[in-house]
Amino acid sequence: MNEEKKEVKLISELGEFGLIRRITGDIELNNESSVLGVGDDAAVIDCSQKQIVITSDLLTEGVHFDLTYTPLKHLGYKAAIVNFSDVYAMNAIPKQITVSIAISGKFSVNAIDELYKGIKLACKEYNVDLVGGDTSTSLTGLTIAITAIGEADKDKLTYRNGAKVNDLICVTGDLGSAYLGLLLLEREKKVFEVNPKMQPQLKGYDYILERHLKPEARKEIIEFFDKENIKPTAMIDISDGLSSEILHICQQSEVGCRLFEEKIPIDIVAGNMAEEFHMVSTTAALNGGEDYELLFTVSLNDYDKIKSNPLISIIGHITSKEEGRLLITEGEQEVELKAQGWNTMKK
Amino acid sequence: MNEEKKEVKLISELGEFGLIRRITGDIELNNESSVLGVGDDAAVIDCSQKQIVITSDLLTEGVHFDLTYTPLKHLGYKAAIVNFSDVYAMNAIPKQITVSIAISGKFSVNAIDELYKGIKLACKEYNVDLVGGDTSTSLTGLTIAITAIGEADKDKLTYRNGAKVNDLICVTGDLGSAYLGLLLLEREKKVFEVNPKMQPQLKGYDYILERHLKPEARKEIIEFFDKENIKPTAMIDISDGLSSEILHICQQSEVGCRLFEEKIPIDIVAGNMAEEFHMVSTTAALNGGEDYELLFTVSLNDYDKIKSNPLISIIGHITSKEEGRLLITEGEQEVELKAQGWNTMKK
Repeated sequence: MNEEKKEVKLISELGEFGLIRRITGDIELNNESSVLGVGDDAAVIDCSQKQIVITSDLLTEGVHFDLTYTPLKHLGYKAAIVNFSDVYAMNAIPKQITVSIAISGKFSVNAIDELYKGIKLACKEYNVDLVGGDTSTSLTGLTIAITAIGEADKDKLTYRNGAKVNDLICVTGDLGSAYLGLLLLEREKKVFEVNPKMQPQLKGYDYILERHLKPEARKEIIEFFDKENIKPTAMIDISDGLSSEILHICQQSEVGCRLFEEKIPIDIVAGNMAEEFHMVSTTAALNGGEDYELLFTVSLNDYDKIKSNPLISIIGHITSKEEGRLLITEGEQEVELKAQGWNTMKK
Repeated sequence: MNEEKKEVKLISELGEFGLIRRITGDIELNNESSVLGVGDDAAVIDCSQKQIVITSDLLTEGVHFDLTYTPLKHLGYKAAIVNFSDVYAMNAIPKQITVSIAISGKFSVNAIDELYKGIKLACKEYNVDLVGGDTSTSLTGLTIAITAIGEADKDKLTYRNGAKVNDLICVTGDLGSAYLGLLLLEREKKVFEVNPKMQPQLKGYDYILERHLKPEARKEIIEFFDKENIKPTAMIDISDGLSSEILHICQQSEVGCRLFEEKIPIDIVAGNMAEEFHMVSTTAALNGGEDYELLFTVSLNDYDKIKSNPLISIIGHITSKEEGRLLITEGEQEVELKAQGWNTMKK
């Protein structure tokens, strides 16, 4: 679906320097701290008064994405967003990224243009500068490695280890949608493989498809914290599923938790989709992953500020380590939380 | 050759978190600026008084390395060194790296240990902290993406665009050895493929093999510049071959150059190897690449300081743009320099 055939030029015809020129020709640096971007051995960043956060992610074809139903522009957008999300999860602001790709020479130049269009769009929307990277061939599939650099005042940085007993556990947006979008795409792919004449049945599911294919990072929440002078006690972004992430916070903060299943925010489209798959929607939220929402804990003192924000749901509270890490189900049963999140290694 | 069979554990048995624990368990942060390393969403770097440089490289199996003759420990070492070299080429000091890998679950855990042993050894030798990264599966080969962060005083940073007419063109160490080491390994691999009973003939070639398999970055030159108060007018590291790199400097500085073939430093082992391959040794220097030496230009005023350093060869001088980019051959012919360096895309 994402193949464009207008131009038949192959990457192998462009060569490495041609490809780099093509990718970097229209890059502008907008952040004051971006002193130098691509074109030298390394980019240069000025960071006089701030601390720098840095995070790297690597996406490989067939493991993290399937090009049969992932438009390359969306893939580029998502690859950038995933890293911005990690920076926001430190209560920091992403400012620069480097993008390294390994790609087969058999890809069309248009394909690579689409990929970078998505990356550059994400940079524009989030006010991040693309300052460097590497382009390289691959004998097989596409690999994208991104490093994002963000900045924050020292005293605003939020780690995973600061959650305290009685803190509120909060989550932004809704959960499980990205995973259900993925299940839908996989289902329609199978149908298509059996009968290529069948049109994929995707109508009405835009929201969960977008959540999977073109997620956003929670910039507005970090801005809200800044405006309201809230500093979460711990924060993490939800890439592997709610269970896995809350366990990270509990482990690093040496605390327990009580999560209430009925409080977990699920979008109505996701709820319907889960029903079609005969799945409990909160299972998708707990174990699905790739939501790129923020999970954070705040002091009870911040309750009044938090409750006013429609993007934030309070889903539980922190307890002592001895009380365990519990999910209170809708049937009021106490279930121990387990990390069944993303683990492509174990198959 | 690099397969270790003592332990049969596969990466797929460890799972992602097990693998991360294994890799990160023994990491220590030694640089004051490394506030936080692995374990949160992003690493944290303090850079109060300095500017930050950042560089990323991506190595893919079958394109950048061949595991049939590359020990994984050396590969890890080299993957780190390549990035340190880029940082030094800015006249900056590498301080942190993030390492992202995509690897097949079929690799042994020992194999991954070896890879990280090499990365960690390089970090130790160069006083760099491993502060983050990503581990992920790959459906096919091994991919390594590294981002290095370095720091420098603002007024010491050296770009590619500062070379001036009459500046001396200098290079560190010797050139062409890494490429000839690669040719030797490729030759012995072919012999081995035809007759697996043949032992590879590598004796006496240690130097060029090491230059290919386990290169070093020119830390001591950057320290020398600092001590002698030399600031090169332009600098680049030699990853793609001397021709390609001097052309980068000429292009970005808008100047010409005269390089003297007889001045190009070639090691005696490399010279002998070139002869065996019926190749002019300077061809390996000009177009071979992967030497990770520094190519830089300095003002004539620095001549006295430079000439005292046995690691530095003066190989030519900068001219005006109109005079062209010339190699003066040993036969005193003027030949236009062309970039025939590394270009895996064009095949």
